[in-house]
Amino acid sequence: MTQDTRFMPRIARRMAGAQASEIRELLKLAEAPGVISFGGGIPDPALFPVQEMSQALTDVLADPVTGPQALQYSVSEGDPALRAWIAAYLTDSGAPCTADNILVTTGAQQALDFLGRLLIDRGDTVLTQWPTYLGALQAFAPNGPRYGDLGGANWMAQGAGADPTAFAYVVPDFANPTGATMDAVARERLLDLAHARDLPVIEDSPYAALRFEGQPERSLLARDIDRVGRIDASRVIQLGSFSKILSPGLRVGWVAASQEIIGRLVLMKQAADLNASRLTQMAVLRVAERGMTARIDRACQSYRQKRDAMMDALSRHMPEGVTWNRPDGGMFLWLTLPTWADAAAILPRAIEAGVAYVPGAAFYPDRSTANCLRLSYSLPSPEAIETGIARLGAVLAQEKP
Amino acid sequence: MTQDTRFMPRIARRMAGAQASEIRELLKLAEAPGVISFGGGIPDPALFPVQEMSQALTDVLADPVTGPQALQYSVSEGDPALRAWIAAYLTDSGAPCTADNILVTTGAQQALDFLGRLLIDRGDTVLTQWPTYLGALQAFAPNGPRYGDLGGANWMAQGAGADPTAFAYVVPDFANPTGATMDAVARERLLDLAHARDLPVIEDSPYAALRFEGQPERSLLARDIDRVGRIDASRVIQLGSFSKILSPGLRVGWVAASQEIIGRLVLMKQAADLNASRLTQMAVLRVAERGMTARIDRACQSYRQKRDAMMDALSRHMPEGVTWNRPDGGMFLWLTLPTWADAAAILPRAIEAGVAYVPGAAFYPDRSTANCLRLSYSLPSPEAIETGIARLGAVLAQEKP
Repeated sequence: MTQDTRFMPRIARRMAGAQASEIRELLKLAEAPGVISFGGGIPDPALFPVQEMSQALTDVLADPVTGPQALQYSVSEGDPALRAWIAAYLTDSGAPCTADNILVTTGAQQALDFLGRLLIDRGDTVLTQWPTYLGALQAFAPNGPRYGDLGGANWMAQGAGADPTAFAYVVPDFANPTGATMDAVARERLLDLAHARDLPVIEDSPYAALRFEGQPERSLLARDIDRVGRIDASRVIQLGSFSKILSPGLRVGWVAASQEIIGRLVLMKQAADLNASRLTQMAVLRVAERGMTARIDRACQSYRQKRDAMMDALSRHMPEGVTWNRPDGGMFLWLTLPTWADAAAILPRAIEAGVAYVPGAAFYPDRSTANCLRLSYSLPSPEAIETGIARLGAVLAQEKP
Repeated sequence: MTQDTRFMPRIARRMAGAQASEIRELLKLAEAPGVISFGGGIPDPALFPVQEMSQALTDVLADPVTGPQALQYSVSEGDPALRAWIAAYLTDSGAPCTADNILVTTGAQQALDFLGRLLIDRGDTVLTQWPTYLGALQAFAPNGPRYGDLGGANWMAQGAGADPTAFAYVVPDFANPTGATMDAVARERLLDLAHARDLPVIEDSPYAALRFEGQPERSLLARDIDRVGRIDASRVIQLGSFSKILSPGLRVGWVAASQEIIGRLVLMKQAADLNASRLTQMAVLRVAERGMTARIDRACQSYRQKRDAMMDALSRHMPEGVTWNRPDGGMFLWLTLPTWADAAAILPRAIEAGVAYVPGAAFYPDRSTANCLRLSYSLPSPEAIETGIARLGAVLAQEKP
């Protein structure tokens, strides 16, 4: 047997195209010393409630009832008290629902995986924003979707061809990757489309609470409940997460939807991993009960400062021909280079100069658009943002058509 | 809009057959007051390291380096130190490997979900024991496999027809549901088959450490490494878990396999839920480092006592014509009724009499065999086992052909 002999089984057709993602590879590059990374959409760990989480875990495990419960198998739906808290939180925000409308997932990412498998047959069309969240494209990919563009000229015709349409998928608030927010008109048009074409709408909403300024837009779920009277008749499937407010390392997210959808997803959760850790669910609940508003305010204050630092640095360091948007919240903004530029080709030179970002093409279903890139301002300090944007400006200034 | 109006989207074909499982429904029935349940394969919470886990979590979060790390996103492969610990544990047990051969999963169940999606094309044959683990059948189902019986008369011919064979799947030690263990001859025959037919073998091994008596059988992974020289050339994909020794509520399991397989699974983990909770991984590592052997010894002592109580009660309370096996470890044994009896039909009468079990048909891919049932002795006390088996004996004694 030589050292080169390997055994690799036949891979199922659905997985044949799977490959490592840019974000993943970038997170590795960003670890190199001296590189300032605007790559990953990573919360600032200075905002994590480390003490509160430690106390909550201690309390859960010290209680003779909840201690053993926290370490035992539990129901696939999720911890009942946490589901009730999430339902009350959503009801307060204008989308009346009960614990029966909530499934706890391993971050919102797991909900994307489940919904792709539940709703996409090979060749179905998924309508989405272009660019859109890369993790959604990765989660949906094994199911073989095609993609229609919700931002295209004729919304109502999108995906109305021969292929059935599985659903519309959007990140309506401070989107990953663009930082853009859908206005009320766009939201109502999307719901019009969903009703006209009898489509589910997946509303991926991890950033909505991180609004620095301006008025919150009513969620698609709340708007659809306005239309149809109650969540159990709604077409909207909303995804939420504690990752961006409390901690991504706990991996606690949720789906809010009609009981019929939740019932389907619960069966998938059971087959996928039985149930989420009850210990982390119980601890998240205790920290959330002790006050989410103060935590959200603190995060907004920090991220607004960093956004302002980035806006300021961009205005001083970007060369002619580069444009960007000003997000009202969230973690991202979107940079557009001259049409001849290729952000992926420039990245190695940027990393050499000590700054990293995610090239924009990865966020397009057809990878069609090369002259754009995503910048995240959530992790670096305002000082590092100034330095990193200055480096990026210098690199871009040297690019020629 | 009437209260009866609902919206349910078109479901993908792969999910059309999904339905609630017997185990799940049973866990609900078993919650009725007064019912002694031999249903779920649930560890005894009296064995959970509640204090140790609390201390470990406190230590992880109090450390200024590991605290923020534990609450941040992390790599999809899993915590590097935990992967190194698992690799050393497996190397000690006779299967030499490194951290690069380990992926941390949300329990071993998540590995079953990933492997089904990675390796099964619709119509492929999966070779397995009949009966086999219900959670594996549920995880594989959306991928549309057929099933061949590894216990059939002609092993080497199994699945050798027109359909490609995806892999062989076995629980070799103290199997769920039967409690049976594959002997050395059966293990070598299975590896012969795998080599002759170029098949991967999934070795699902959550119970192997829970051996009360007799000599451990060398694992399929260790045996295949003996044959091919190193794990990176091995056909065996081994699944392990902390659920049965430390706590199922933490949801920490693993896959040990060649780097090529692990690389594929890491991409799936990333798309499925990004990464496992680093906090629970770090805490599990600390508890495991402080001594797994003592924990295993304590669990074996407790479960042996309960198995003995069940064996004793069965011998006194079962009517003529009922037979059962004597497991050397694990949590389960398998009861065979007279051929005319239907364990699923009897279950409502058993629950009325205050005792629950899982009817055996659920564990057969074709649900063909009705006159058998699974008993788990891990959760009830020895006294409850005596009472429950007496109740079951009285119910079965009233059944007539």
